[in-house]
Amino acid sequence: MSGFHQGDPDSIPGNGAQWLGCLAFTQETRVRSPATEPSFCPLLHFFIFAWPWRMTISPISDAVVYVVLTLGNSARCFRGVHRKSQPTEFNPQKSQSNKLHAPKPLNRTQSRDSPKLCQLQPFLPPLVLYPLSFHHPLCFLLCSAEMASTTLICDTEPWKDLKAHVEDFKNTHLRDLMNDKERCQSMMVEFDGMLLDYSRQRATLETMDKLDKLAEAASLKQHINRMYSGEHINSTENRSVLHVALRAPRDAVIYSDGKNVVPDVWNVLDKIKAFSEKVRSGSWVGATGKPLKDVIAIGIGGSFLGPLFVHTALQTDPEAAEFAKGRQLRFLANVDPIDVARNIAGLNPETTLVVVVSKTFTTAETMLNARTLREWISSALGPCAVAKHMVAVSTNLTLVEKFGIDTNNAFAFWDWVGGRYSVCSAVGVLPLSLQYGFPIVEKFLKGASSIDQHFCSAPFEKNIPVLLGLLSVWNVSFLGYPARAILPYSQALEKFAPHIQQVSMESNGKGVSIDGVPLPYEAGEIDFGEPGTNGQHSFYQLIHQGRVIPCDFIGIVKSQQPVYLKGELVSNHDELMSNFFAQPDALAYGKTSEQLLKENVPQHLIPHKTFSGNRPSLSLLLPSLNAYNIGQLLASYEHRIAVEGFVWGINSFDQWGVELGKSLATQVRKQLHASRTKGDPVEGFNFSTTTLLTRYLEASSDIPADPPTLLPRI
Amino acid sequence: MSGFHQGDPDSIPGNGAQWLGCLAFTQETRVRSPATEPSFCPLLHFFIFAWPWRMTISPISDAVVYVVLTLGNSARCFRGVHRKSQPTEFNPQKSQSNKLHAPKPLNRTQSRDSPKLCQLQPFLPPLVLYPLSFHHPLCFLLCSAEMASTTLICDTEPWKDLKAHVEDFKNTHLRDLMNDKERCQSMMVEFDGMLLDYSRQRATLETMDKLDKLAEAASLKQHINRMYSGEHINSTENRSVLHVALRAPRDAVIYSDGKNVVPDVWNVLDKIKAFSEKVRSGSWVGATGKPLKDVIAIGIGGSFLGPLFVHTALQTDPEAAEFAKGRQLRFLANVDPIDVARNIAGLNPETTLVVVVSKTFTTAETMLNARTLREWISSALGPCAVAKHMVAVSTNLTLVEKFGIDTNNAFAFWDWVGGRYSVCSAVGVLPLSLQYGFPIVEKFLKGASSIDQHFCSAPFEKNIPVLLGLLSVWNVSFLGYPARAILPYSQALEKFAPHIQQVSMESNGKGVSIDGVPLPYEAGEIDFGEPGTNGQHSFYQLIHQGRVIPCDFIGIVKSQQPVYLKGELVSNHDELMSNFFAQPDALAYGKTSEQLLKENVPQHLIPHKTFSGNRPSLSLLLPSLNAYNIGQLLASYEHRIAVEGFVWGINSFDQWGVELGKSLATQVRKQLHASRTKGDPVEGFNFSTTTLLTRYLEASSDIPADPPTLLPRI
Repeated sequence: MSGFHQGDPDSIPGNGAQWLGCLAFTQETRVRSPATEPSFCPLLHFFIFAWPWRMTISPISDAVVYVVLTLGNSARCFRGVHRKSQPTEFNPQKSQSNKLHAPKPLNRTQSRDSPKLCQLQPFLPPLVLYPLSFHHPLCFLLCSAEMASTTLICDTEPWKDLKAHVEDFKNTHLRDLMNDKERCQSMMVEFDGMLLDYSRQRATLETMDKLDKLAEAASLKQHINRMYSGEHINSTENRSVLHVALRAPRDAVIYSDGKNVVPDVWNVLDKIKAFSEKVRSGSWVGATGKPLKDVIAIGIGGSFLGPLFVHTALQTDPEAAEFAKGRQLRFLANVDPIDVARNIAGLNPETTLVVVVSKTFTTAETMLNARTLREWISSALGPCAVAKHMVAVSTNLTLVEKFGIDTNNAFAFWDWVGGRYSVCSAVGVLPLSLQYGFPIVEKFLKGASSIDQHFCSAPFEKNIPVLLGLLSVWNVSFLGYPARAILPYSQALEKFAPHIQQVSMESNGKGVSIDGVPLPYEAGEIDFGEPGTNGQHSFYQLIHQGRVIPCDFIGIVKSQQPVYLKGELVSNHDELMSNFFAQPDALAYGKTSEQLLKENVPQHLIPHKTFSGNRPSLSLLLPSLNAYNIGQLLASYEHRIAVEGFVWGINSFDQWGVELGKSLATQVRKQLHASRTKGDPVEGFNFSTTTLLTRYLEASSDIPADPPTLLPRI
Repeated sequence: MSGFHQGDPDSIPGNGAQWLGCLAFTQETRVRSPATEPSFCPLLHFFIFAWPWRMTISPISDAVVYVVLTLGNSARCFRGVHRKSQPTEFNPQKSQSNKLHAPKPLNRTQSRDSPKLCQLQPFLPPLVLYPLSFHHPLCFLLCSAEMASTTLICDTEPWKDLKAHVEDFKNTHLRDLMNDKERCQSMMVEFDGMLLDYSRQRATLETMDKLDKLAEAASLKQHINRMYSGEHINSTENRSVLHVALRAPRDAVIYSDGKNVVPDVWNVLDKIKAFSEKVRSGSWVGATGKPLKDVIAIGIGGSFLGPLFVHTALQTDPEAAEFAKGRQLRFLANVDPIDVARNIAGLNPETTLVVVVSKTFTTAETMLNARTLREWISSALGPCAVAKHMVAVSTNLTLVEKFGIDTNNAFAFWDWVGGRYSVCSAVGVLPLSLQYGFPIVEKFLKGASSIDQHFCSAPFEKNIPVLLGLLSVWNVSFLGYPARAILPYSQALEKFAPHIQQVSMESNGKGVSIDGVPLPYEAGEIDFGEPGTNGQHSFYQLIHQGRVIPCDFIGIVKSQQPVYLKGELVSNHDELMSNFFAQPDALAYGKTSEQLLKENVPQHLIPHKTFSGNRPSLSLLLPSLNAYNIGQLLASYEHRIAVEGFVWGINSFDQWGVELGKSLATQVRKQLHASRTKGDPVEGFNFSTTTLLTRYLEASSDIPADPPTLLPRI
């Protein structure tokens, strides 16, 4: 992107921007700094040349430059990204704009008193400013977004240093690194019962030192602070990112836009506590007077995977299971009617409560599923039953009411909660409290909160999420591994990988920096995984002898469901954990042809039975798997993913990549409607899509144009 | 690997080997071909030089060379792989061996009458053979494995040609390719109701032509034929690969080791039909006289994921669901006792039948789970109940009987069925027949068989599995995409991706060629996926704007569970399918900043809302999703993965990579036993593992050394 384009004055970065100062372009300016003697203004990081008709400003670093042209008491804002070898020119006379705005008051961070200085690199060509006319008094206000984000991290010394450092591992095998006791000892970190062992990463103490410098160059600490202090770090949506506030103690103070949000959070939590107790105790009953023992939560993406993960993990926890006796919790996400059939199978509307989760109450899948279950309820119990059997987690009270849900039964969350980070909001807390009771869910929130404290306060070398994040950056951006396997040795964590797959790939699967600069490196990794030992009999073959895929091994000291059989060598859980302890060494050490020769393996099998080893992994050991530990695990991964995004210099909190498919689906939907009802031919698509759509319509042409309402037969 | 090592004469390749001939090393030889005039033997593809004390043989292609040194009527076999720049020398006097074996008779394919000629490349250095002594008459028999597999595919012209061809796509965007109607038309293939559209692959007709040449260079057709004709293409386990025989019609004839295996297959199928009907009809009852309505199938890996996928897909098929009324089928795979708890929760041993699936009846996880459920049954119903409530799918009748299962209730499968290809054997057919009745499962087998016929008979340009396989090789080995997303737009196919992840990553996640030559290219891809539309709200962000991941979109014309709501624009299934049709174009076309500017998107958001497009995908449209279609889908992917392996020149049917972890786990298991029972300190592990193990033992030290039997409390 080069050149200046008109924007809205609101797009001048507020929080986090670096105010570079103000230039009065008047005759005086020219007199003060004639072309013959360029003057340097250190505060501005700008060289200023002046001519009668033209002022040249050479920012000596890459920067996003905002120019506010003021005329009298009105202003016009322009924005441009300065990149190496991209000439940038601003000439109000050439500009297309006619709009005029009142000048925006400068906020604290925009005052000249607090300039953030940082490493600057030589920059050319210059930014050229033209006055409207020689005689017209004119003022340019210039500010640039924070350098740390406008300068790509790959342009910094620590990044280049790490790139070079990779060479040091060409001839270093993990076998050798594992012999260094001191190294291994310092690569074990513990917090609040969680033990992280990253000694099987292809990293030395020197690597960790260089990663620490990288974190510094990326202003990681500042980014974390800005997140916790409610700054609008989700700049493309102009929102703060405060899922940490969702699990903050009642007396905590966390500001968003000048307002402490913690009381709002606890108002909703208290409301959920009261409501879930009413439902669970049977004092809230359905339309026919029966208690509501089954819950279907409708939501997709973050409103689905997070709560599903926690539910699956709690299901076999003895304490949680005790509170869930006689109750069922199901999740309806896919717009596929088959998912509706699976969810209502065996359930009775009379005893079912439906929770509709959609922030805007407009999510296509969720709302169609909501209308489908509304039909399921009202066709069985009459339309009035809806208010008794359906509640909402949403902020759009108008649509909630329009849908037929009592707005008193709408549970709020906030713009500063991203969908994939919303499991600790009403999105997850309501359905989980209905199933397990609020006290269990509160434990889960406390576990997450414990990691939140750790993340924002612990020094990086002892900070588990930071270490996890930096090591992932090392694996992805320097060692070049595109994927990461999440391997929990607990069937209760069956849905952990799918949830983290979403949090990670939606957060960091970006192609541009937070300032819109295309990334010369790849951000984000491919996350996948299944519980051990199942995975061992599935994709581990590739992990051991095929591509190198860094692995997260997650183990639990005490099983939720211990089983011992008389006469067995070990307990079932010890049998499981034997694999948890064995796999990381198998990956790290491998097996050489020499070892195989000693075992008299037939020559022609030796290459097939050889393991190269040198495959990185890390091990995370949790004392148990109760609600509290589940919260710890969730928060550790949420923050790890944020750390990666902060270092890569991207916005981990937006998701523009999901929009295009939605809009194209709308076009197809219209076509299907027009073809089925009016027999319109398929038009406006490419040949392939036209052919497939036509084929689809023909093959299903026996479906009546306007069929009667039909619900699943199962 | 260089030099010759002694092997077993049995390791002389039989089927598929190319007999290069016999050299009598005698005085006459020397006389016939003096050093001064090298003679060339075309049949042998060998240059022969002779000196008084030494005979030099220069194979002019890479080859696995077997030398059988015969002395009188005894023989000794040696094997070596000839690779460029790897000197190979054989000197019986230097050899360590003392063992002597009777010479192996040469079988048909080893006769000199049928030499397969193929492209040969100049080769040096020579293979040098030394006689035992100048005066000793001596005979060398030389044969080499088939060239197609000993010459790495990357050394062939078609491979190099495709490598160069990639350049042609540097400036070609899918947007442009999609405008070529003729191209798109020829990139749609149909068979038996299945429609494949691969027009959104980054490929031209020229690419397909080059891939066809690659297939030829890889002898793909011969490999397929050898699989169907029961040759031991799983050479490292010396087994044939005949899962196609599992679904062959009763009157088909498929040989393995000279025996038609189809009758054996149908004997087992008939036995399953009879047994499942007995159980379903209630004529077979449990120990307390109650019918067995619930089934728990214990198995892991292929004995788990395949049957689970088919079960999940059939569950919502109206016809199958009808036959399953009142019955439950569950799968116990993980050795984690939590998985036991989840499986027995809500079940009554009196009405439960347990199917233990393990070929050898020694699989650690499966057998411990089997013993656990045996305890669950016998503790409730007495030990005699086991014979009534447990059956086996295994070939090891001794262990089956020892376990307490009536061998009449053991259902066989065969060495030529790999675990991950076993869903069509008793492994899947028994539990599925118990749940849905044999006729439904027979439909499933018929669907798979239909694709089997297609795969072995259709010309490559119309052969769906071959096209799928070749395009994957193109994406992985030439375009360099390490992963593949499997995106079925059907919730019923929820478990399809996990199953294919196993079949693909375990089959092709290899580091050496079938002859043990380390691969200079990566084989196998990372397979993952979730059903659409769920995935769209999860990892699609990365797929659209982050890394390029080729996608398989799988759509169904007619839903298993159609839902219509009065007043909706389209049916729920049409809503689902709108996304199926929209996503591939979103990935292919993307969205440019020009388009966004036209939509007046604020300048600072344009880079974030830009989609590069040019992201490949393919679309597979099935008419419906009944047992037959599920079989088609399974077989298409099984064969696609085989095609990839055949082209890469690897053994897709072994899985040595899973062994090392197992053996290390045994060491840990012993340690845990010794520490818990005798308080032994942790010894024989590296520092990290010792620390973690010690921590684990200490944190769980309150577990008694030899606890009483305990089953899940849930």
